[in-house]
Amino acid sequence: MQDTNNIPKRSTLPEDHPKGPAIILVEPQMGENIGMCARAMLNCGLDDLRIINPRDGWPSGSAIQTSSGAVNVIENAKVYNSTAEAVEDLQFVLATTARERDMVKPVFTPAGASHELHNRYADNQKCGIMFGPERSGLTNDDVALAHAVLNVPLNPDFSSLNLAQAVLLIGYAWYEKLGHDIPDTYTRRGESPPATQQEFNGAMQHLMDALENKGFFLNPEKRPNTERNIRNMFARLDMTSQETSTLRGIVKALARQKQTKT
Amino acid sequence: MQDTNNIPKRSTLPEDHPKGPAIILVEPQMGENIGMCARAMLNCGLDDLRIINPRDGWPSGSAIQTSSGAVNVIENAKVYNSTAEAVEDLQFVLATTARERDMVKPVFTPAGASHELHNRYADNQKCGIMFGPERSGLTNDDVALAHAVLNVPLNPDFSSLNLAQAVLLIGYAWYEKLGHDIPDTYTRRGESPPATQQEFNGAMQHLMDALENKGFFLNPEKRPNTERNIRNMFARLDMTSQETSTLRGIVKALARQKQTKT
Repeated sequence: MQDTNNIPKRSTLPEDHPKGPAIILVEPQMGENIGMCARAMLNCGLDDLRIINPRDGWPSGSAIQTSSGAVNVIENAKVYNSTAEAVEDLQFVLATTARERDMVKPVFTPAGASHELHNRYADNQKCGIMFGPERSGLTNDDVALAHAVLNVPLNPDFSSLNLAQAVLLIGYAWYEKLGHDIPDTYTRRGESPPATQQEFNGAMQHLMDALENKGFFLNPEKRPNTERNIRNMFARLDMTSQETSTLRGIVKALARQKQTKT
Repeated sequence: MQDTNNIPKRSTLPEDHPKGPAIILVEPQMGENIGMCARAMLNCGLDDLRIINPRDGWPSGSAIQTSSGAVNVIENAKVYNSTAEAVEDLQFVLATTARERDMVKPVFTPAGASHELHNRYADNQKCGIMFGPERSGLTNDDVALAHAVLNVPLNPDFSSLNLAQAVLLIGYAWYEKLGHDIPDTYTRRGESPPATQQEFNGAMQHLMDALENKGFFLNPEKRPNTERNIRNMFARLDMTSQETSTLRGIVKALARQKQTKT
């Protein structure tokens, strides 16, 4: 994730990747920020970058540098003279803004917007998300072009994000809903499969026998309950086949008559 | 959101803010990155920053600079000599990593981790999330200290995030679940309340009367259906009280006998 040593020199999206919303940067100031936006876009499987009047000119060497390999997104970016022109072909446009505007407008969180955008892409609509200049944000005229507002709810006393971070949070909300095959939690097991109940019971029997030999079960009445508690504790481990062997090895070593120095 | 002109000089969390997981940076290299992490943390209502052996020393002027006002997070950061020490008081620790490790470990997405962390905080447990150095990520020894792995699923061909972006995405997943009072979508209306049905019907009647005067309804048989379609289109606007007056004004102006030049 934050490991940066394996960034490919030039990355792009596979041809069959599902299309996503255009990212529209209105009068961005610094090339560096455009590059970081391109990187965040490609992280999230987005590659339609549109730029309106970039202050420092275009093409931008610093944009390519900060894109960390998302060079194709930069090279294929389209540059426009006006916001209206940049959104001409789109059927649903969101304006990101934190400030209250005196405009009647639906407002979406990133999660809400992602839901709406996925519904619209399922219906083959072309959509886009506008971001304003670093310092000032979108003008009211730009916001009026949009069908709805996108607002990232953050700590109200400290809600300022930089441009690329805003693109990343919103892009990730889009990407998150693409990844239907990724469960919110699972267990990574490496090579060894989960243990069968037989393997688990074998290891438990090994443990109980060793404990009995060592006189662990002082009170025969309490033994069933104690055994159950021990089994329950180890069951929670959800061990692999390999780990049941490791556990047997541990028990065997601990039960040795002659101790080796540790 | 990306409007940066209103960043407070020094921001902190209110006393009664719900506690969240510690952010644990293991051997971060650049002060700039630590500052940006502090900013991302405070964006997401987190303020327990722990740093293990920062390469460029501590305190760090560049960290304060890039924190954009999250100075209290920087100043209250705790510095440790080892990861083990930094997590000593915690009851549940997550290790962020993208690389496959040969370790049996539960894996969470940010959404899954947020769910788990909120459950644990509801139970008053102290939790933390570890992030490795910028270039290399966490060592296997560090990952082994954690109860589970946190992985951000991104474009598999381009999944590298910088440190602060990883903190932001994961922090936002935490914050998102705090904001139960923020609906995923709502309509911002400014000062004017939503129109009553009476106001809406009045505007519609005004429109229908004007259309009738102008001979719009050529076919009396089709009229009910045409009227219904027009009503339905305007109903979708979900107008404010003020907007019904605006609509009446539009109709009145259009219906004028004497046209003014446009």
